[in-house]
Amino acid sequence: MTDQATADLWPGERTEAARRLLLAAVESFARRGYHATTTRDIATGAGMSPAALYIHYPSKAALLSEISRTGHRATLDLVEGAEAASGEPVEQMRRLVEEFTAWHARGHTVGRIVNNELHALPEDAFAEVAELRIRIEDTVRRIIEKGVARGEFEVPDSRTAARAVTSLGIDVARWYTDRSTESPEELGRRYGVLVLRMLGSAAA
Amino acid sequence: MTDQATADLWPGERTEAARRLLLAAVESFARRGYHATTTRDIATGAGMSPAALYIHYPSKAALLSEISRTGHRATLDLVEGAEAASGEPVEQMRRLVEEFTAWHARGHTVGRIVNNELHALPEDAFAEVAELRIRIEDTVRRIIEKGVARGEFEVPDSRTAARAVTSLGIDVARWYTDRSTESPEELGRRYGVLVLRMLGSAAA
Repeated sequence: MTDQATADLWPGERTEAARRLLLAAVESFARRGYHATTTRDIATGAGMSPAALYIHYPSKAALLSEISRTGHRATLDLVEGAEAASGEPVEQMRRLVEEFTAWHARGHTVGRIVNNELHALPEDAFAEVAELRIRIEDTVRRIIEKGVARGEFEVPDSRTAARAVTSLGIDVARWYTDRSTESPEELGRRYGVLVLRMLGSAAA
Repeated sequence: MTDQATADLWPGERTEAARRLLLAAVESFARRGYHATTTRDIATGAGMSPAALYIHYPSKAALLSEISRTGHRATLDLVEGAEAASGEPVEQMRRLVEEFTAWHARGHTVGRIVNNELHALPEDAFAEVAELRIRIEDTVRRIIEKGVARGEFEVPDSRTAARAVTSLGIDVARWYTDRSTESPEELGRRYGVLVLRMLGSAAA
């Protein structure tokens, strides 16, 4: 059930027990929804007792917080990495959309959870994740505005355009399944072309 | 809490009690998530006893089914209406995106539920809703392909493009709130421009 992108979120930095709990939480939240999941469901999924779970995480909210923080940090890294990889807004945007789209396709299980359960986060985690989301959207907007300033993009409103770009990628996590016929990379390339056009680029 | 678009979904065709139960179900599902909502929550929200609820609906799944069917039928009407309103693919698509987007902004509460809880539907309702979703996407694709055939649109792949168009509108229900600064109509107009560009139209 767990896709590779989800498994890769926690490579070696956690203890094996914490990692098993995080993956079991992702699976339970995806299957039952966050609210209907109990810590017992998660512990069982990880092959542990509820008491053993509490050694690592005080609550299911703590697990959701770590999943959401990790997912959002990885997304921000990807977005900022695309910006840093080139000085050209067209190339920055193409790479950003290709990777952002492919990431939401590969990581659709965790993507659905972190995007649908924002309001279930405890206050401190919500504030941190909201800040990461703003930085992601600001990066997209910065690239758009740089392209507009250079005459390479032309949009009615850079905030709406940035929202549309991120929205298109985020929604991939809702509809993409392991049975989808396009690979994450192929979908990324096609979305890259569509987004560059949407931004009025002559390069697409 | 209930937005106008949700209230308008059940105008006069239901009994007052059934209507109150549907609206209370939308509110409960939106607040707690479908899985964590009980029929008692819904009955209480409608100012009724659980026994009174069962006179109208045998289960919360029956309420979800009616909400999802009604929401999807209304969406299909809107999409087919946009196609019927003009013979020109550019105008059909502009109108479709404007109305589809504004609809998901106005009806964001019910939009979130019907899009996130598809897999909670009983088999017969799922089959019916899946069929409605296919007809919605087929309408979008038909308009795109007509535009391509006339040389007015140009896309790498009409299926991916149709998916991107519907995805962009559906995701509005996830992020739009009553505190959003753009009105549903303004957002619809801007998305109309962005989508026509995305489809390679010279008209946007």
